Amino acid sequence: MSTIHNKFLGTDVHLGVVAVGFSGGQGKSGVDAAPQALIEAGLLTALHEDLGFTIHHDGRVHDYTEYKPSSDPPLVVADAKMPMLRPKTVSAVTRALSEQVYEHAKEGRLVLTLGGDHSIAVGSISGVAKAVKQRLGKDLAVIWVDAHADINTPHSSGSGNIHGMPVAFLAGLAKPPKEDPSVFGWLDQEHHISPKKLVYIGLRDVDVPEKKILKENGIKAFSMHDVDRYGIGKIMDMALEYVGDSPIHLSFDVDALDPMWAPSTGTPVRGGLTLREGDFICECVHESGALVAMDLVEVNPHILDTTGFTGLMGASETVRAGCSLVRCALGESLL
Amino acid sequence: MSTIHNKFLGTDVHLGVVAVGFSGGQGKSGVDAAPQALIEAGLLTALHEDLGFTIHHDGRVHDYTEYKPSSDPPLVVADAKMPMLRPKTVSAVTRALSEQVYEHAKEGRLVLTLGGDHSIAVGSISGVAKAVKQRLGKDLAVIWVDAHADINTPHSSGSGNIHGMPVAFLAGLAKPPKEDPSVFGWLDQEHHISPKKLVYIGLRDVDVPEKKILKENGIKAFSMHDVDRYGIGKIMDMALEYVGDSPIHLSFDVDALDPMWAPSTGTPVRGGLTLREGDFICECVHESGALVAMDLVEVNPHILDTTGFTGLMGASETVRAGCSLVRCALGESLL
Amino acid sequence: MSTIHNKFLGTDVHLGVVAVGFSGGQGKSGVDAAPQALIEAGLLTALHEDLGFTIHHDGRVHDYTEYKPSSDPPLVVADAKMPMLRPKTVSAVTRALSEQVYEHAKEGRLVLTLGGDHSIAVGSISGVAKAVKQRLGKDLAVIWVDAHADINTPHSSGSGNIHGMPVAFLAGLAKPPKEDPSVFGWLDQEHHISPKKLVYIGLRDVDVPEKKILKENGIKAFSMHDVDRYGIGKIMDMALEYVGDSPIHLSFDVDALDPMWAPSTGTPVRGGLTLREGDFICECVHESGALVAMDLVEVNPHILDTTGFTGLMGASETVRAGCSLVRCALGESLL
Ligand SMILES: [Mn+2]
Ligand SMILES: [Mn+2]
Ligand SMILES: [Mn+2]
Ligand SMILES: [Mn+2]
Ligand SMILES: [Mn+2]
Ligand SMILES: [Mn+2]
Repeated sequence: MSTIHNKFLGTDVHLGVVAVGFSGGQGKSGVDAAPQALIEAGLLTALHEDLGFTIHHDGRVHDYTEYKPSSDPPLVVADAKMPMLRPKTVSAVTRALSEQVYEHAKEGRLVLTLGGDHSIAVGSISGVAKAVKQRLGKDLAVIWVDAHADINTPHSSGSGNIHGMPVAFLAGLAKPPKEDPSVFGWLDQEHHISPKKLVYIGLRDVDVPEKKILKENGIKAFSMHDVDRYGIGKIMDMALEYVGDSPIHLSFDVDALDPMWAPSTGTPVRGGLTLREGDFICECVHESGALVAMDLVEVNPHILDTTGFTGLMGASETVRAGCSLVRCALGESLL
Repeated sequence: MSTIHNKFLGTDVHLGVVAVGFSGGQGKSGVDAAPQALIEAGLLTALHEDLGFTIHHDGRVHDYTEYKPSSDPPLVVADAKMPMLRPKTVSAVTRALSEQVYEHAKEGRLVLTLGGDHSIAVGSISGVAKAVKQRLGKDLAVIWVDAHADINTPHSSGSGNIHGMPVAFLAGLAKPPKEDPSVFGWLDQEHHISPKKLVYIGLRDVDVPEKKILKENGIKAFSMHDVDRYGIGKIMDMALEYVGDSPIHLSFDVDALDPMWAPSTGTPVRGGLTLREGDFICECVHESGALVAMDLVEVNPHILDTTGFTGLMGASETVRAGCSLVRCALGESLL
Repeated sequence: MSTIHNKFLGTDVHLGVVAVGFSGGQGKSGVDAAPQALIEAGLLTALHEDLGFTIHHDGRVHDYTEYKPSSDPPLVVADAKMPMLRPKTVSAVTRALSEQVYEHAKEGRLVLTLGGDHSIAVGSISGVAKAVKQRLGKDLAVIWVDAHADINTPHSSGSGNIHGMPVAFLAGLAKPPKEDPSVFGWLDQEHHISPKKLVYIGLRDVDVPEKKILKENGIKAFSMHDVDRYGIGKIMDMALEYVGDSPIHLSFDVDALDPMWAPSTGTPVRGGLTLREGDFICECVHESGALVAMDLVEVNPHILDTTGFTGLMGASETVRAGCSLVRCALGESLL
């Protein structure tokens, strides 16, 4: 069991787990199979047995079938390059997830959300943000570890996939589209995060309009160039200092890791974090004593490695990497 | 387009490209196929479309057949261990290249030379050095990124391959051999660089006589040991500070990268730079605003990976790495 | 030949080599084949020809058959989880090795012990410690580079394998078991090392009781988390400063390296040192001028890589890595 005192949850931490088998924020099937793969690899058992958590989990991987509309055509948005894909579905699923996560977070539990694609962060982060405001009177900080900024608006997106937009909606930089205001219309002020409380780590594939959004909103971002310049130790010092004494939601997209360590993901980008650096980020966030929630997303067990590195093992390396990241964030330490 | 103002070329940079399909500086065929492979991988298109360069390229990969003598036997040099191999050919080809590069450089263009083996740097660097002296009244600095120092003289060389000697001729440490003074006899004072304006990065396979030459001439060299000790961020700070306010020629031998990232090269050496570190070097040189020319050499698309790392993909990893290095040096940035 | 003056051995260093073909400290055969593989890969030749050592080696790989008792059943120790495995054998073999190493060390030779599993360090370190006390009146410092702490006692061990216990016996933290006091009963005060003169580097798989032992005895340990935080350059500064002006025994378990670089070892653990970091550690210890002995252990040429990284080459990568580590510790340098 970790010896770190959690500033916002106390020491005897209960863990709420939501397993989100959802892939509708992007186009590749398989990412919905990640929660099952992570659980079968022993993740929850390890969190209970080795790290001492009392786990609150309904034993299910949710597919949210009940929330999926019978029809959900691409939503053409005025002046946008591409229509939004599966907008009603993603909005409804993340709304349901937001409530699930909120139920855990308002009890003072640490919340672990196992995705699923990164669109689900609209649900997990909004639920935690609301609970943290109510329970602690504080704004939630988000450390977003990713190759991508996921901050496109429906207007700037070049693909229409909503897993590239969650930060824009969460930070209030994108609004529900006029063409269908019910899409993310459920996001209230209490669900939002401040762009000033957001820090990126690991960026290396950022769209041109996203770069503009980051600059215009003064959003703190440590790219891989910064990681190389300063080393991951100094980066984490800077990231945690920037966050200050806010409760932290760690949203970890496994594609932040280099494909050498995490090949089984939908949009891999070379030049990423080593597994050691990924684990280190998680260890430091744990040591901060400020972690209140974590997402692990974009593990796709159906994507076998074709790089020649880990081909013989299918997706097991990526699943193993994902488990390692979560265990480190939740208190596993080397000494 | 990059926002960095180039101190020596202005902001609206024109790019001169010379594609050098030459392998005579060493014994393995295939390195002459690199320019075609790099261009087919989209390098020039990306430089134009993504980075906004106006490209001046004659559309050819030069093989310099017209400069190759009918006979070019090994040149036995007194007191040397090995005869020089293909001396007339290498001398004639690099002389022609020197003039091609000079023509671009005197117009104030950034010059990109795609090799070819590293012997071609005798041509590219001499042409840029002459133009920089004339146009700016300044001495050219060279950042030589390589596993090897390439500073053998015809006397010290253990192989006779001229791709291991370019720095010695460029820095005036090797003279045209008495046995045939026409070999590199065309190199004038105006073509030379100063050993005090030379910085190595990435060295890890340096011959004993080369170590002596480096020491005796007080040449600045950052070995892989130094990269490990200081981290690549500090190394680039030190390298650029050493260079001062001189215009920079970046001569990048892809074998500076570890064979894990660049296996398709003629003389791979383990323990090299990661691709991230290679890109970082190029990004920092770009940010200096002092880059006036770049060589990318020793990509050999005919050498398939036999390390088991990227075997299934032939040489594509190395070609891709080469493109990445050039794009980073010419202004691609993550944020 | 290295230009570093050795503070405890002088400049004209003689090298004593003991090749220990022993695998009894753990359960997998093959690690006893390492000395032969390392020697066949040219290690001793390189130490002589390239680094200029006069080598004192009896030309044998010892299997210590003559020291193995006819019967050596598991030794049940009161209150222990598991019985000690092959206790009489390991005790007798390490005792014999201790004397072999002592014979070299008392002559002022640098001693290189090629294992074998890590249990043999009981022999090598005890022999050097005794000689150093007698010859120099100094306590021996140990830099133990390993994924594991190898500091279990017979009571805390979860496996009973003695290769997980050598530090406990060497530092006097484990005593000969009451059930058979002859097991390691030969270890005298003069063979012991001080827990205050011990530094670990590379730890990442430490048993819970081992963590307790490390803390209670105030033992200095740099885990992989520390390596990531500070960088290997600063780690070596801190490690060597901690050691002070003591003679150094470097005990290098090849599993300290990540399995990507050293897959052929009995208990690989992900998230380890790169080969560059391993070489760097060895180079820094050499540069300290304080190295008096080195172990290289746990190379197992019978374990072929199954990670998909170096599968086509069997164990050659690990053997090559082992040779590199030794050459770096003994004075090979890049420049
Ligand atoms: Mn993402
Ligand atoms: Mn991503
Ligand atoms: Mn070169
Ligand atoms: Mn080279
Ligand atoms: Mn070990
Ligand atoms: Mn060990």
